[in-house]
Amino acid sequence: MNETIKTILQRKSIRSFSKTPVDEEKIKMIVECAKAAPSGKNRQTRKYTVITSTEKIQKLAEAIAGELNLTDYRIYDCTVLIIVSTPKESEWGELDTACSIENIYLAAHALELGAVWINQLRGIYDKPAIRQILTEFKIPENHAVWGTVALGIPSENPMPKERIEQVEYIR
Amino acid sequence: MNETIKTILQRKSIRSFSKTPVDEEKIKMIVECAKAAPSGKNRQTRKYTVITSTEKIQKLAEAIAGELNLTDYRIYDCTVLIIVSTPKESEWGELDTACSIENIYLAAHALELGAVWINQLRGIYDKPAIRQILTEFKIPENHAVWGTVALGIPSENPMPKERIEQVEYIR
Repeated sequence: MNETIKTILQRKSIRSFSKTPVDEEKIKMIVECAKAAPSGKNRQTRKYTVITSTEKIQKLAEAIAGELNLTDYRIYDCTVLIIVSTPKESEWGELDTACSIENIYLAAHALELGAVWINQLRGIYDKPAIRQILTEFKIPENHAVWGTVALGIPSENPMPKERIEQVEYIR
Repeated sequence: MNETIKTILQRKSIRSFSKTPVDEEKIKMIVECAKAAPSGKNRQTRKYTVITSTEKIQKLAEAIAGELNLTDYRIYDCTVLIIVSTPKESEWGELDTACSIENIYLAAHALELGAVWINQLRGIYDKPAIRQILTEFKIPENHAVWGTVALGIPSENPMPKERIEQVEYIR
């Protein structure tokens, strides 16, 4: 089978990571793949913020936990966090973000890494305690965060999920 | 270079297609790839409607043209149209749709086909003239359409677009 098709069909969300840091070259390649995703009218308004300090990732995790009243929330102790943001007024912010995040997943899987969607920032990126950290991460004040990816070397190998979505052929 | 990474980096939007129909097996593989995309909380609420009748595609194109006052709108005379829909109340409808459409793009490119995002239905899927056709296509009344893909055998080979999005590394 075609390698790309195999990657797409075999990709799984990974929620448990080794403490070993991810190779910098792999991270850069993954970000190039994110940027290669299409964007509405080719506007290319996404920004990728790549955090490899586990201390800074945990600082954000704590702020999210505080905002959402979560206990023991550590963003799966990932070693890399990629925050994708777009200008708030961007008409296709959610769609553009998701296309680039799907590329991140597939590139990660192709490079023997694992990744999972982190959705918590979506509704709270403008809460003061969160925005303060996003600003420390140099994310522009006028940017919305639609999606975030936790990334790392996998330390689990979950079973693939059964696929149940409907398909209708109109011939 | 890894084949999947190569596919991701080399994919381009294709807006001109051969009249030759796409092989059924390739279409089925592409739909399997769409279904393999992640979805919010693994709810898997997407439905894929795959139209291979160029007559029916043009009927939809005409209705869209009427609604949006477009002239000569023919959805690039594609030979396959894939409409991705989700229940209107789905919290992650846009994000889920975009992830599956990105998989469709990559699978198409991997199988030497071309594809482009069709955004026109997004704002008008509930207009009576459009909804009537969607109903003929068996798309549920309670579904929203966030994205549509025009697909076919490419008859152009455009230059890759320059990538200008910003990346910030926080170490």
